[in-house]
Amino acid sequence: MNSDPDREYPVDGDGGQQEMVLTRKNAVLVDGVILNGPTTDAKAGEKFVEEACRLIMEEVVLKATDINEKVCEWRSPEQLKQLLDLEMRDTGEPHHRLLELCQDVIRYSVKTNHPRFFNQLYAGLDYYSLVARFMTEALNPSVYTYEVSPVFLLVEEAVLKKMIEFIGWKEGDGIFNPGGSVSNMYAMNLARYKYCPDIKEKGLSGLPRLILFTSAECHYSMKKAASFLGIGTENVRFVETDARGKMIPEELEKQIGQARTEGAAPFLVCATSGTTVLGAFDPLEEIADICERHGLWLHVDASWGGSALLSRKHRRLLQGIHRADSVAWNPHKMLMAGIQCCALLVKDKSDLLKKCYSAKASYLFQQDKFYDVSYDTGDKSIQCSRRADAFKFWMTWKALGTLGLEERVNRALALSRYLVEEIKKRAGFKLLMEPEYANICFWYIPPSLRVMKEGPEFWEKLNLVAPTIKERMMKKGSVMLGYQPHRGKVNFFRQVVISPQVSREDMDFLLDEIDLLGRDM
Amino acid sequence: MNSDPDREYPVDGDGGQQEMVLTRKNAVLVDGVILNGPTTDAKAGEKFVEEACRLIMEEVVLKATDINEKVCEWRSPEQLKQLLDLEMRDTGEPHHRLLELCQDVIRYSVKTNHPRFFNQLYAGLDYYSLVARFMTEALNPSVYTYEVSPVFLLVEEAVLKKMIEFIGWKEGDGIFNPGGSVSNMYAMNLARYKYCPDIKEKGLSGLPRLILFTSAECHYSMKKAASFLGIGTENVRFVETDARGKMIPEELEKQIGQARTEGAAPFLVCATSGTTVLGAFDPLEEIADICERHGLWLHVDASWGGSALLSRKHRRLLQGIHRADSVAWNPHKMLMAGIQCCALLVKDKSDLLKKCYSAKASYLFQQDKFYDVSYDTGDKSIQCSRRADAFKFWMTWKALGTLGLEERVNRALALSRYLVEEIKKRAGFKLLMEPEYANICFWYIPPSLRVMKEGPEFWEKLNLVAPTIKERMMKKGSVMLGYQPHRGKVNFFRQVVISPQVSREDMDFLLDEIDLLGRDM
Repeated sequence: MNSDPDREYPVDGDGGQQEMVLTRKNAVLVDGVILNGPTTDAKAGEKFVEEACRLIMEEVVLKATDINEKVCEWRSPEQLKQLLDLEMRDTGEPHHRLLELCQDVIRYSVKTNHPRFFNQLYAGLDYYSLVARFMTEALNPSVYTYEVSPVFLLVEEAVLKKMIEFIGWKEGDGIFNPGGSVSNMYAMNLARYKYCPDIKEKGLSGLPRLILFTSAECHYSMKKAASFLGIGTENVRFVETDARGKMIPEELEKQIGQARTEGAAPFLVCATSGTTVLGAFDPLEEIADICERHGLWLHVDASWGGSALLSRKHRRLLQGIHRADSVAWNPHKMLMAGIQCCALLVKDKSDLLKKCYSAKASYLFQQDKFYDVSYDTGDKSIQCSRRADAFKFWMTWKALGTLGLEERVNRALALSRYLVEEIKKRAGFKLLMEPEYANICFWYIPPSLRVMKEGPEFWEKLNLVAPTIKERMMKKGSVMLGYQPHRGKVNFFRQVVISPQVSREDMDFLLDEIDLLGRDM
Repeated sequence: MNSDPDREYPVDGDGGQQEMVLTRKNAVLVDGVILNGPTTDAKAGEKFVEEACRLIMEEVVLKATDINEKVCEWRSPEQLKQLLDLEMRDTGEPHHRLLELCQDVIRYSVKTNHPRFFNQLYAGLDYYSLVARFMTEALNPSVYTYEVSPVFLLVEEAVLKKMIEFIGWKEGDGIFNPGGSVSNMYAMNLARYKYCPDIKEKGLSGLPRLILFTSAECHYSMKKAASFLGIGTENVRFVETDARGKMIPEELEKQIGQARTEGAAPFLVCATSGTTVLGAFDPLEEIADICERHGLWLHVDASWGGSALLSRKHRRLLQGIHRADSVAWNPHKMLMAGIQCCALLVKDKSDLLKKCYSAKASYLFQQDKFYDVSYDTGDKSIQCSRRADAFKFWMTWKALGTLGLEERVNRALALSRYLVEEIKKRAGFKLLMEPEYANICFWYIPPSLRVMKEGPEFWEKLNLVAPTIKERMMKKGSVMLGYQPHRGKVNFFRQVVISPQVSREDMDFLLDEIDLLGRDM
């Protein structure tokens, strides 16, 4: 291996001194490098891109909707390392070899586009967002200043405006960022800044303990955020939920009172609209009342459930969301905008986002530019370079219209409803609870357990069922869905329906397949 | 407009109640939605993707290297809003209209691939990373668990290992994340956790003030990070630099002593390898000595300069980097991996990253999986869903080999050297200082100012030159480079050389063009 970085190779001639040679053919050499003309072979590069695009089209896009394809081609990490040529060497590989590598990468990657991929809160293939994503990659923008990203900044502004409209605010502000977890961090910091702007300069040292409240069913990013922001996970108070996983408002109010008694400083309530496991929606109106009474910032983590706002039939799930101070909403989930497409939306229009986040870098956000620098929105961000994530959602919205997006949400929830009814009909399947949204949580009880009483032994054995079936389905490659233990409940499946490429036949298949793979247990 | 979200439309029939109808043709209806078969027209969608790919190929990829194309087609925000049809409506647009929209988006976007785009610390078109990026978009992975992202997790592991090797560590850990700013936050939080692990649970309240040190030339993300993490911007101590922009080690040691006298708690030194404006490299060996003496975590922000590690000729700029505890390095800058491709690398191998960041979400990181769950690396991240950013860098490395990457770095720096020599030769151009790296900072002094003494009036007038020329070049669309005032120096140009598509002819053009656009001033 020649690439040992500590080994000093004889460098060409002058050992670091600058030379500049003008040869006969007018070639300019500096440090042994010819500087005339570009060095890359653009024609060969372009041909490679074209060939790879054909491969991607054939092997990924065209096969995405084909249920005869496998969802995954399982290999263990050890096997996969053998199969893939991962090592980066001193010399490069020729194009035909790179295309083989691409083929391997596709082959062994999980097909998250597949109609039977139900493993996460995203799935399916949206042709419009895909095109927007290809364009973004080709144009390679960074969205911080209007001079570098004129189109993408205006698109972001338009998309945020529309999302704000659907939340029900008259006006507002917002920013696309890399994930619901990061959106929640933005909100937490913003609420803290509103509570005490001095924290930006002075930090938390010497202040009373800041306390925030969220439901016991919230996303784990709340803990990550509290730890990252220096608040501490112990200062996240988890409010008890009802049987459906919804925060109990009375419990929230009790906890706020208790925190005050302790001398701590409550500053934020995070409600969840669409919890990760159960798909539960917290009662926003009642929580908003409490926040108003106690002067607390209300953040709604609608990363998953926010898309229901587009459905006139289902937006009642988020009744009261217009009373929130901030909202996290990820169109990359149910609206299929592609990983990642996540917005933090803020009701305030006094430029709170900018005041809280700005660092006024003079090399990037010059104030003597020849255009209106209020379009240089990058200083609202914790990032410097930032991707044009709003654009892919915009493209889908342009293509389908609001009504088309609404239809997607309605269809996903109708399919969920269908699955629920099928589960009720079938022997050996047992719902955890009636779902409100697209998370259908259920146990599969194999024949041998159906005759047992629901005692400790039953639950212990049932706990092993979902992991075993999951292993079998992945090794077969027929379908993927998630399972988990959850708050005292042993391992159960969580089925999530999103994609319009999914049909009721896939729902039937799912249940048949689970039964087929688990009936010997 | 039909999309007023507050207006409740008559919903189909049952007003929310669940109905399930089995019609003659075996069509299953739930809530008025037919659930049989997929609803999307895959053929039409695929055709649209194919047509759009052709457009992207022709209008972006093939034109990327063409210097006869404009770098930008400037329009003011107001004009651009008129030209683009940004509004999202109730009904969707047909494919031919969407393709026109794509064409408009391309037309008015800045061509960051263009050989004469020198505006930021990224530029150019890398065909290999572009292919990897197209693949990532088509496969739409989220990199948190092996079951969902087997290939991309192994690729990330391989790339991190290689980067660690080039830093000069025997082993280490790391994570790709959305930007150098975020990498710096990761490092700051990690150093804080190492200093006092209790902060994760208890937060900063009641603790002495944590203090960190960085150079006065550091990236603005240091301030953003300190504010976001609850440390406070006042607790970032900026250490004075020498005339070339390098941190003065004696000043660092003085500041550490002073902080201790104040009763504050120093915990971190951030050195910069390749500052944003001047491209300066802090003296790492001397800074590492000081960190060792005082027991402080040493983080090196090599977001920009890290790529010099691949050049045997230039890696001496980062002499001593192996002594760092953590390093931020963005291959999307000089190595052209595409926005974003950023790694935080950590020397520790006691699983510090995981201990510091884990939240152990049981729905995602189940411990009873059938494979080795140490491959589920997502719990090291502050994000939940995460993009496969390592893959694009891996593809370029596979294609070019280490030697090809080295050649890129060497060529960019040789071209910079060429430009420096040209600037020295030409009347009216004045270097700020001899550069170490690919940032060439200089003033253009128009003829009318060349006869003036360098007094207040001269500087005042010179301050207007760069913004005016920038406006002219953008309106003409011929070239883009940045300018800024900086630490008492009036507005000057910062030229950055990266792409192998750039030639010495482009350097000559740049200087000619500035002179052409500014000689009447």
